[in-house]
Amino acid sequence: MTVGEGRRVTITAIAAEAGVSVPTVSRVLNGRSDVSPQTRERVEELLRQHGYRRRAARSRVSASLIDLVFNDLDSPWAVEIIRGVEDVAHAAGVGTVVSAIHQRSTSARQWLQNLRARATDGVIFVVSDLSPPLLAELRRLNIPMVVVDPAGVPAMDIPTIGATNWAGGLSATEHLLSLGHRRIGFIAGPKRLLCSRARLDGYRAGLEAAGIEVADELLFQGDFYHESGFAGGAAMLELDDPPTAIFAASDQMAFGVYEAVRRRGLRVPDDISVVGFDDLPEARWASPPLTTVRQPLAEMGLLAARTVLRLAQGEDIETPRVELATHLVVRDSTAPL
Amino acid sequence: MTVGEGRRVTITAIAAEAGVSVPTVSRVLNGRSDVSPQTRERVEELLRQHGYRRRAARSRVSASLIDLVFNDLDSPWAVEIIRGVEDVAHAAGVGTVVSAIHQRSTSARQWLQNLRARATDGVIFVVSDLSPPLLAELRRLNIPMVVVDPAGVPAMDIPTIGATNWAGGLSATEHLLSLGHRRIGFIAGPKRLLCSRARLDGYRAGLEAAGIEVADELLFQGDFYHESGFAGGAAMLELDDPPTAIFAASDQMAFGVYEAVRRRGLRVPDDISVVGFDDLPEARWASPPLTTVRQPLAEMGLLAARTVLRLAQGEDIETPRVELATHLVVRDSTAPL
Repeated sequence: MTVGEGRRVTITAIAAEAGVSVPTVSRVLNGRSDVSPQTRERVEELLRQHGYRRRAARSRVSASLIDLVFNDLDSPWAVEIIRGVEDVAHAAGVGTVVSAIHQRSTSARQWLQNLRARATDGVIFVVSDLSPPLLAELRRLNIPMVVVDPAGVPAMDIPTIGATNWAGGLSATEHLLSLGHRRIGFIAGPKRLLCSRARLDGYRAGLEAAGIEVADELLFQGDFYHESGFAGGAAMLELDDPPTAIFAASDQMAFGVYEAVRRRGLRVPDDISVVGFDDLPEARWASPPLTTVRQPLAEMGLLAARTVLRLAQGEDIETPRVELATHLVVRDSTAPL
Repeated sequence: MTVGEGRRVTITAIAAEAGVSVPTVSRVLNGRSDVSPQTRERVEELLRQHGYRRRAARSRVSASLIDLVFNDLDSPWAVEIIRGVEDVAHAAGVGTVVSAIHQRSTSARQWLQNLRARATDGVIFVVSDLSPPLLAELRRLNIPMVVVDPAGVPAMDIPTIGATNWAGGLSATEHLLSLGHRRIGFIAGPKRLLCSRARLDGYRAGLEAAGIEVADELLFQGDFYHESGFAGGAAMLELDDPPTAIFAASDQMAFGVYEAVRRRGLRVPDDISVVGFDDLPEARWASPPLTTVRQPLAEMGLLAARTVLRLAQGEDIETPRVELATHLVVRDSTAPL
């Protein structure tokens, strides 16, 4: 028995064609492990051939839970993403399980084990390095996945929600140029992350469009953390011809620049302008309140939750990667030259 | 059939004595709703009389999940508590479901509905006002509960993890006194919260022990948020005889004081010393880094998770309320007079 186009194939039809029982097809659909690899492969091939939509199967096993997985929960923006995800999940009557896997494979394994002990309708990763075995296992379990990616990992075969890092780098630089600044320092994020590259390239593009050469001594390699912002700020302030503005590729590094400026007995923005990147809640509370590029972290969480719930319903996602717009929030840390 | 002291009563014995079936006793133990109120009451009375330990029942229905419930996820310390809870839960192979109920009964009802659709081994509330119907329902479902209470709610009949707010208020005040300050302003938290009262009383106790009268114009009523710290700081700096130090009952309010000081063209700590309360991660990144009273939020989360998992195992908790010690962290926002 085969099935024509446009008609919905049934599990019974697949079972008949594969020469197995209906419960066996269900077990494959539900990602259970008590099926031989050969049978699984044969059934999955037929499911693919017939374009079987897993909607019904997924709904039947609905766990009323989605998983949100971080490397670490000390990231200052973790709570923003949690808020966005929880908002959507709560409204959908779904609980949000928050985990940290600490970039350790033992911890990821333990998480996976916990996942098998209960169930999940889908997983949102806020993790820059997903181990291939972990991914393979989740695929085998037929669990929908989405990546929220403030860091800009290389494209994977998973729907990914990012932010427009390059455009953000450009807008911060253009803002400083519009205030008359010409010597603009840049403190970069870790090189291995694409978002760092994109922000740096946005900065370069802004300067080059204004006909300004990028000066080596005004580029400092940071790591997104406070200490590196402090070090970069301190180093640039010691130059014979110091910058009149510094653009740091994270808010935390911008706060480090604040402290370097204070230690020299100088003031933001009177003596030097500072721009950050992220718009953490702390940016509003800083003194002076920080001009920064806003990443819509809560919105990224919202969209990730909506996407994973759609996948859990068996819907297809059109675009594998979406970048939400960043935008400049001008506060009191920047002033005309 | 009755059961002597020291021997463990069985469900079978309870069922026989109550004149109901064993599955009915199980349904009562598992908090199911398909039992008549009279039967439930009779069975529960017998369970109590015989000191039946619910360990076995709870373990059988283990959900591999605990729930962590906030009012809102915009609290700057939410992520600290989440980290502490997740750490313990993860190690125990248990997932942490994070929810926000927004102090709205509809939202709490929705959460409860979601909870019934899946299961939970216990609930940790980080919520200052728990509605009695919600509590009653969770009790009926026989779900263990713990309250993490940075705010100091009045004692409820639930194990509660708090912090030593009074001692923290005292230690901050003693620190400023030891630096030679005598005119010390205080910006208080919301009056309705016990923790606000305790911090204020600690401040008063410190001044009174030093023979200093508490001056009305040096007390400002804040609400823990940045804006009220700014308003309080600005008001005190306008006094004819302004304070030489300000103790704000939250870090956010202390950052507001920073901004009030900056706007007057003054400096922390050169012109005025500032102390906060909480020790959020931002306290280290502030410029200058903030001297503050540390609340061990992650530790409070750890202890709450351990406690709720013990309750889920049927263990008894000896002490209904535990207060973890606060301690002063001296950084750069305080200086000798």
